[in-house]
Amino acid sequence: MYRDPDPRFDSLGGHPVALRPLRVGMIGIGTVGAGTFRVLARNQAEIAARAGRGIEVVAVCARNLARALAVVGQGVAITNDPMQVATHPEVDVLVEVAGGTGPARDWVLAAIAHGKHVVTANKALLAVHGTEIFAAARQHGVAVAYEGAVAVSIPIIKALREGLTANRIGWVAGIVNGTTNFILSQMRDQGLDFAQALAKAQALGYAEADPAFDIEGTDAAHKLALLAANAFGTPVNFAEVQVQGITALHRLDVACAEQLGYRIKLLAMAWRHEGGVELRVQPALLPATHLLAQVNGSMNGILVHGDASGLTLYYGAGAGAEPTASAVIADLVDLARLDGTHPAQRVPHLAFHAHALQALPVLPHADICTRHYLRVPVHHARCMAAVGRLLAEQSVPVERMEWMHGTTGGARQLLVLTYAAPQGCVDRALHTLQSLPEVAGPCVQWRVELLAG
Amino acid sequence: MYRDPDPRFDSLGGHPVALRPLRVGMIGIGTVGAGTFRVLARNQAEIAARAGRGIEVVAVCARNLARALAVVGQGVAITNDPMQVATHPEVDVLVEVAGGTGPARDWVLAAIAHGKHVVTANKALLAVHGTEIFAAARQHGVAVAYEGAVAVSIPIIKALREGLTANRIGWVAGIVNGTTNFILSQMRDQGLDFAQALAKAQALGYAEADPAFDIEGTDAAHKLALLAANAFGTPVNFAEVQVQGITALHRLDVACAEQLGYRIKLLAMAWRHEGGVELRVQPALLPATHLLAQVNGSMNGILVHGDASGLTLYYGAGAGAEPTASAVIADLVDLARLDGTHPAQRVPHLAFHAHALQALPVLPHADICTRHYLRVPVHHARCMAAVGRLLAEQSVPVERMEWMHGTTGGARQLLVLTYAAPQGCVDRALHTLQSLPEVAGPCVQWRVELLAG
Repeated sequence: MYRDPDPRFDSLGGHPVALRPLRVGMIGIGTVGAGTFRVLARNQAEIAARAGRGIEVVAVCARNLARALAVVGQGVAITNDPMQVATHPEVDVLVEVAGGTGPARDWVLAAIAHGKHVVTANKALLAVHGTEIFAAARQHGVAVAYEGAVAVSIPIIKALREGLTANRIGWVAGIVNGTTNFILSQMRDQGLDFAQALAKAQALGYAEADPAFDIEGTDAAHKLALLAANAFGTPVNFAEVQVQGITALHRLDVACAEQLGYRIKLLAMAWRHEGGVELRVQPALLPATHLLAQVNGSMNGILVHGDASGLTLYYGAGAGAEPTASAVIADLVDLARLDGTHPAQRVPHLAFHAHALQALPVLPHADICTRHYLRVPVHHARCMAAVGRLLAEQSVPVERMEWMHGTTGGARQLLVLTYAAPQGCVDRALHTLQSLPEVAGPCVQWRVELLAG
Repeated sequence: MYRDPDPRFDSLGGHPVALRPLRVGMIGIGTVGAGTFRVLARNQAEIAARAGRGIEVVAVCARNLARALAVVGQGVAITNDPMQVATHPEVDVLVEVAGGTGPARDWVLAAIAHGKHVVTANKALLAVHGTEIFAAARQHGVAVAYEGAVAVSIPIIKALREGLTANRIGWVAGIVNGTTNFILSQMRDQGLDFAQALAKAQALGYAEADPAFDIEGTDAAHKLALLAANAFGTPVNFAEVQVQGITALHRLDVACAEQLGYRIKLLAMAWRHEGGVELRVQPALLPATHLLAQVNGSMNGILVHGDASGLTLYYGAGAGAEPTASAVIADLVDLARLDGTHPAQRVPHLAFHAHALQALPVLPHADICTRHYLRVPVHHARCMAAVGRLLAEQSVPVERMEWMHGTTGGARQLLVLTYAAPQGCVDRALHTLQSLPEVAGPCVQWRVELLAG
């Protein structure tokens, strides 16, 4: 398969020295942009020894020109016009690390139209505009790389797109939002309620001033849409992800889950079934001994089940300047190897070549079948049997019932773990349960996930 | 960067249909070979949709022709002459899954000399002959891929070579031998001694009839040599790995480690220091809450520390027909994309381009500085202070001392955890300790590894 020697390379003695450096334009020189610049500079010898050529930032766009100058120094063109970088004649690859969706879409599409590859860590952009952006990239024969968009330090896009290509992937489940995982860890370890844990996360810089995207599950849903597309070979389908954040989670349930031997995590999950896919982001109980249950603080962890590989797990930092830089630069090294290759030879944007992508129906909420955790506040201890009977009548099989330990002032808390039952049955059962005279307040329900092979 | 349309591809509408299938010759159609054939057949549509072309086995070599025919069916050339497959004119890629070193080396070199890429899951082959094989591949412009050689189901070679290219990698540590991990899990969970646990592993098929390669640490050392080379950019240096297996491990120490809050695992570790590298395979105590300590049974787990990424962890099955097939086929998909590319554009065999590989000195045993666990059998309970004093005098700082719980008939067991101390100091201290009249038998010593960021 070896072709004639190519004048672009001097491969004698294994020295690939003749390739000129890959030239990068960067929009956004905030935390991630500056981190990327710093790591590129610090490890430039090792990176070039791996890539076979240098990687050089030639232009950056920043709102604050003086701060940008302080980061990148002389010799790099600095502008506050993003389009200038996106269409810069010297630039081979646009690195978009500014964030947001509307303007970022325009910059990325402009770079693509000018024949430039794109690297972005912007999950919102790709979750919302991915289909359009990937189509434009195909049309112009360029690549859009986005390892930094999901669980930054973990090469999970590479694992899904390249490492597990032999497999029919059955499901992906992960903790992909560090902010909520930090909050949940605090609720468990310190017994804080949600508002206290959020305030602490904000004070420590783990949550933004406006934390809505994180705590409402939107950020995790962006990432899940990208993971599911790569796992199953479907177009990005953010719109249909069922999203439930952690704002309604009570610390009582965090404690009750512990009592039962479980831990509550915000899980992003994609499952493939006969009739379609499940795409969900929601807090769920995981067995406390499960590997994902050991993913604490702001770390991320992702499980993938392939029919040949079985279960594999990937763990690492899910945010931060240099962990994100690690992903962005890995993408740049991949792109540094593409010169002169045909797009059909490259790793497809969503793991599968575009003609093979297949939209799969998303299963309706009521059909989703999992185990459940119920907490039923009751007036007295004699009603356990009545609750069990009612659940059985409603086709919700019970695995285990017990009383919450300790007092909670007033009502007793009956804890129930069910076997798998469709959400529709559980909803009906809860509705009936709620009307029993023994029941002293609103019943609480969360899903239980075993995530076993 | 998009070049003129290439007649090999019909890229209209994103349909890369014009590439002919990649043709594979396979030596060895035992468990792994048959598994690879089966997965290629079962998932052929998904694999082709990812690779952009089909992957087709055209020739196999097997000792038992009838059994091979039963696996691959008509339409595939079957021979018992490995060289016929290695040099077969129709074959693009040789898949070597027969194992062993001497003959496998000859087949692989023959395939390379005939311009064929090679995929192998044979860690022994690459640990021993890697330098020669990679040099031959460079000379002939072909690639040698070996994802299946380390922690099969986990794309760890891809993570190191491509996912973490931005990083200066400081260390790699992992559980990479499923047989010994199964034995250690049995010793802990069932209280078995080594011989009993080994017998059980053999009965269940987790250990081979001749288990020496596994239990003496050789297999883990093969894998470590490959991991270290890819992490640090050094030639494969199996010869200098310090190897200690698990045969000398006493179940008492497994239990004592538990008492102290640790678990004993066979760890393969490579560290980079100012003056050189540490390359070691040995049983060591890990904090029981450490993620790697949760890697049980025959599973594998590998931690990598990069200066930008921080800690990342990779977990999955370390053996088995289909998990290995998953890795072998991922390599084939990568190779399916190489047609017409120049070798200098490809991912280098050992992560770094050959001219940049640097042999690093391996630190001598006596200089290696870690925490230690000591078990000192003594005649009476009054000697704790004497032991502590002696260790302090020998520059081995003590973190914690306590008595082993329960009786062991006769001597009492004094357990010591030390802070980091060079092996030389610890050896001298143990020598002196051993001569104290209070000491009732041989002192036991194992390393303690914290493996934190």
